[in-house]
Amino acid sequence: MDIASLIGVLMCFILMLVGIATSGGIQTIPNFLDVPSAAITLGGAFMAVLASRSMPSFIGGLKSYTLIFKMPADNNAVVIKQIVDLSNTARKEGLLALEEAASNIEDAFMKKGVMLIVDGTEPELVKSILEAEIDAMAERHKENYSFFGDVAGMGPSWGMIGTLLGLINMLNDMSDASKIGPSMAVALITTLYGSVLANWFCFPAENKLKSRSNSEYMMKSIVIEGLLSIQAGENPRVTEEKLKSFLSPANRAAYEAENGTGDGGGE
Amino acid sequence: MDIASLIGVLMCFILMLVGIATSGGIQTIPNFLDVPSAAITLGGAFMAVLASRSMPSFIGGLKSYTLIFKMPADNNAVVIKQIVDLSNTARKEGLLALEEAASNIEDAFMKKGVMLIVDGTEPELVKSILEAEIDAMAERHKENYSFFGDVAGMGPSWGMIGTLLGLINMLNDMSDASKIGPSMAVALITTLYGSVLANWFCFPAENKLKSRSNSEYMMKSIVIEGLLSIQAGENPRVTEEKLKSFLSPANRAAYEAENGTGDGGGE
Amino acid sequence: MDIASLIGVLMCFILMLVGIATSGGIQTIPNFLDVPSAAITLGGAFMAVLASRSMPSFIGGLKSYTLIFKMPADNNAVVIKQIVDLSNTARKEGLLALEEAASNIEDAFMKKGVMLIVDGTEPELVKSILEAEIDAMAERHKENYSFFGDVAGMGPSWGMIGTLLGLINMLNDMSDASKIGPSMAVALITTLYGSVLANWFCFPAENKLKSRSNSEYMMKSIVIEGLLSIQAGENPRVTEEKLKSFLSPANRAAYEAENGTGDGGGE
Amino acid sequence: MDIASLIGVLMCFILMLVGIATSGGIQTIPNFLDVPSAAITLGGAFMAVLASRSMPSFIGGLKSYTLIFKMPADNNAVVIKQIVDLSNTARKEGLLALEEAASNIEDAFMKKGVMLIVDGTEPELVKSILEAEIDAMAERHKENYSFFGDVAGMGPSWGMIGTLLGLINMLNDMSDASKIGPSMAVALITTLYGSVLANWFCFPAENKLKSRSNSEYMMKSIVIEGLLSIQAGENPRVTEEKLKSFLSPANRAAYEAENGTGDGGGE
Amino acid sequence: MDIASLIGVLMCFILMLVGIATSGGIQTIPNFLDVPSAAITLGGAFMAVLASRSMPSFIGGLKSYTLIFKMPADNNAVVIKQIVDLSNTARKEGLLALEEAASNIEDAFMKKGVMLIVDGTEPELVKSILEAEIDAMAERHKENYSFFGDVAGMGPSWGMIGTLLGLINMLNDMSDASKIGPSMAVALITTLYGSVLANWFCFPAENKLKSRSNSEYMMKSIVIEGLLSIQAGENPRVTEEKLKSFLSPANRAAYEAENGTGDGGGE
Repeated sequence: MDIASLIGVLMCFILMLVGIATSGGIQTIPNFLDVPSAAITLGGAFMAVLASRSMPSFIGGLKSYTLIFKMPADNNAVVIKQIVDLSNTARKEGLLALEEAASNIEDAFMKKGVMLIVDGTEPELVKSILEAEIDAMAERHKENYSFFGDVAGMGPSWGMIGTLLGLINMLNDMSDASKIGPSMAVALITTLYGSVLANWFCFPAENKLKSRSNSEYMMKSIVIEGLLSIQAGENPRVTEEKLKSFLSPANRAAYEAENGTGDGGGE
Repeated sequence: MDIASLIGVLMCFILMLVGIATSGGIQTIPNFLDVPSAAITLGGAFMAVLASRSMPSFIGGLKSYTLIFKMPADNNAVVIKQIVDLSNTARKEGLLALEEAASNIEDAFMKKGVMLIVDGTEPELVKSILEAEIDAMAERHKENYSFFGDVAGMGPSWGMIGTLLGLINMLNDMSDASKIGPSMAVALITTLYGSVLANWFCFPAENKLKSRSNSEYMMKSIVIEGLLSIQAGENPRVTEEKLKSFLSPANRAAYEAENGTGDGGGE
Repeated sequence: MDIASLIGVLMCFILMLVGIATSGGIQTIPNFLDVPSAAITLGGAFMAVLASRSMPSFIGGLKSYTLIFKMPADNNAVVIKQIVDLSNTARKEGLLALEEAASNIEDAFMKKGVMLIVDGTEPELVKSILEAEIDAMAERHKENYSFFGDVAGMGPSWGMIGTLLGLINMLNDMSDASKIGPSMAVALITTLYGSVLANWFCFPAENKLKSRSNSEYMMKSIVIEGLLSIQAGENPRVTEEKLKSFLSPANRAAYEAENGTGDGGGE
Repeated sequence: MDIASLIGVLMCFILMLVGIATSGGIQTIPNFLDVPSAAITLGGAFMAVLASRSMPSFIGGLKSYTLIFKMPADNNAVVIKQIVDLSNTARKEGLLALEEAASNIEDAFMKKGVMLIVDGTEPELVKSILEAEIDAMAERHKENYSFFGDVAGMGPSWGMIGTLLGLINMLNDMSDASKIGPSMAVALITTLYGSVLANWFCFPAENKLKSRSNSEYMMKSIVIEGLLSIQAGENPRVTEEKLKSFLSPANRAAYEAENGTGDGGGE
Repeated sequence: MDIASLIGVLMCFILMLVGIATSGGIQTIPNFLDVPSAAITLGGAFMAVLASRSMPSFIGGLKSYTLIFKMPADNNAVVIKQIVDLSNTARKEGLLALEEAASNIEDAFMKKGVMLIVDGTEPELVKSILEAEIDAMAERHKENYSFFGDVAGMGPSWGMIGTLLGLINMLNDMSDASKIGPSMAVALITTLYGSVLANWFCFPAENKLKSRSNSEYMMKSIVIEGLLSIQAGENPRVTEEKLKSFLSPANRAAYEAENGTGDGGGE
């Protein structure tokens, strides 16, 4: 469970309730629930995005919202440790010994890379196959997080469309002065919904998924760099040194505390 | 028929009607139809875009709207299958045997590529001719989807121009207080039209055509990659492995279920 | 005469008149002409742009407005035909025979390129001289169209400055309630002028000049590609095939209908 | 202590107090302190950013605010001097003599680079390890300054959400006309808070950290360039000449006044 | 004196006075001078930018404003002439003869380049030293013109903060209806100041300095290209031909009229 997203999303919701309660009292909260306003704003925004995507891309985008509450499985330090182990195995027992080691690897991407090496694929080809794969992965991730970017763009626009509809109706019938205020209040609810949709629901999801995607891309880049280093027969210490450059100073210190300094755990 | 665009575009329209009906009653719908407002907003926006393009580019842009409701013909998995088949043919019967195979290819681009190979064109030249072709294609697509981006930019601007015209006239003649409301309502209709033009008509079309263009560009890139692999005499399994990197895990699984795992259907 | 720009620019103007007439009657049109408002909005916008440019760049920008009504002289198909003819001449009679052919070329850029080849300039140098030339050309075009982009940015800003000036004066003297409306109407005219300056005058000019510049850049790129192909002694058919990749399918079909399929009109 | 940031941040605060005092009197300052408004605007903005980041990235971002008041330790001229000294040492006493020199280097990055050279690592590898390290550093810096960019984007949005909540409540209950003004005043406070959060707190922090990051990146790039020059055995004067190109004319003059003109302080 | 910037800046100021005088009469001009409004808007904007920069960068930015009124010293045609002369000298009397010629060169950059050639520095190194120098120059220029971009962004924001402060105070005390107008007028003055700061003071300065920087970068690029051509021992006519590609057709015609067509003035 990713506690940051959970706290953030819940707190924003609570703060809005607090905002309403302090300005007008708790009894005014129901005034902010208006089904037709939700229909035009949320409905309009999502339907306009549906119109601009294929059905699977729309559904995939929606579903990816839940991902922001899940912790990513691995981290770079663990991955580097795994690769340095593979490097030591390869150095001591030869590239073919990696086949057995591969059977213990859970990450499908690293496994595929190791198998390509075991099969004796040319380094250039290993590199281009693995890079094509992570580029395609980044493209799929972008398809998901851009979904929230698109909805975030549409929310305030459809909110404004809803407000304009309400205003025009109100202006056309101002016979009863006491109704003007409430009519305008209802008209403004769509603007509020559009703003909340963008700033509470969409932007956090877009940014979170984007930064997750970047992390995963970087982790897989480390894997590629490491595997090519193994295939090139480089010394495990060199491989480790190279990969450690990707770690932040804090993570590097932690890594070195756990695995020894540059000894690659083995030689 | 691309159901996503159809549902999206229709639902947005229905939701707007619902929005009007719930805020002012069904009888207020005619208030939202105003020919002069449409003339200044839609007319102004389209005419300003016409002024900034050539006539064929303007007409081509307009016409491309219908494309968003059409499903694209092929998908990457089918294309990869075709290329792997060609690769097997070339390996077993030589490059010249592709000439006969080419006669069965429907896609003009792939056919052209195969014919270039059969003619013994240099790989560098094959690559540069095919890449020039898909770059020119992407350029033409951009000419179309940027049309909707341009109109989307002009819509709210001309809506605001219309509203300013109405407001200035209203402010100059406020003798009859009962007319101020309705006059302002009419003035706001152009702002509404501009917003609807951008968010209902233009943005979905722009985004849909853009993502279609990207998919087609990627599919044609796969074709180029595959044909060059064939021309280089690479093993069909290698060709297949390379091209499969472009597929998503789901599509790859489906592909492998249908065609066997990395066997290229033949050897 | 470029009919698209003419119709677009005229129609926008007519639609504004129609908008005024339908909202307030034809007799209200003079209300929209206000010299001081024009001075602060148009004057301010143009003077701010003058301050940000050199005098020749400012004048050149202004003058380039008329270009949007002129049709560009040549098209890619004609240029390709010319180059294929040159290629045939070079193949049959040698590179030096191009000197005579060059005397019939009207386009100064193509002529210069041909003369460089005839003079025996190294291919690398021919390429770098011609590319420096079209890059400098693109830079000059950008100087012109960015003029309209700059004015378009300044228009609404100076319109708002004008409106603020008017509003502040109005708010400081509200003794005569009957004057408030008309004062605000006058204040809003500068906002209207700023909007019209941007969306009627500037954006169409900027976009039109930009797309013209891109077309010309592409045409000249075709010339460079073609001349280098001639200099490299490539077969005219190869040259033609290469250049045809730049044409859209429609233009290619037209080209082939006129010149035969890939025969280069000669051999 | 970085005096510029301190003066800037303090003065902005003082000027806001002055602004309030001159418009409404000192006694109105408490009117601008409203806890619920702060909760919805600041709380909403920070919580929405928390939802879009991991917990460590959120805390790291917050903490990095204090960095804008700290002066950076070194400057390019000092770094160049150090490298030229190392270069002279290496030339006179050989690359291995750098090991001793390295023990006096405080900067961990330069030390690591020198040790890589002493260890006889291949130049290509030295370069790729050091570049991976500064790219990762830039990435971490971006994680911090983008935090302020994200909050700056969220501030005005949540300010508007707060204002809409207040407005809707006010419009729903306009029975007491004397309360309308103060209610609207409170509603506007969230907009004010959002604006102040963005323009007083966030943008200066974002820009300052960004420009610091660029300076540090450049300084470390100079180190890499210099170390590679030493490893390549280039003349210390050449090394110095190369590195001095990175200095501004003023800094270069100062550097030359201190270290002699291009003599590298030694030979 | 750069007449364009002078006229532009002065005229904008005059037009604002005219705007005030025509809307409210000359006697209303003092209403637009309000020291507290200036403090919060201009003070806030400049202090926020100070907080986001180092003190020297802030002062340097401010000072660079006067540069927009100075004419740049040289132009490309003069520079090309100088280089072609150097090229002729080098061809006739050898590279070493350039040392004497260098003593007559005023431009420090060209002089440095010539001295590097005379010293027998490797072409690769000459190129990288000179390019590092103009990149650093462009970076310094950017530091200056981005100052105005930053202030331009802060102006309207602090203007809005000032207006909100005034509005909130006004809304909290509406007991005297006759004061509402003037209070709002004062509140709006900060918005006006912010807009004027951005559109009169900042944007012209930013754009002017940016385009100056681009011109200077291009001129220095011509110098590099020319010096490398001299060092490579290329024929002065080739050097001249290469460099003339950077001139606009008009400047090229003028250049050729003055210096003869492609004869390099000498041989």
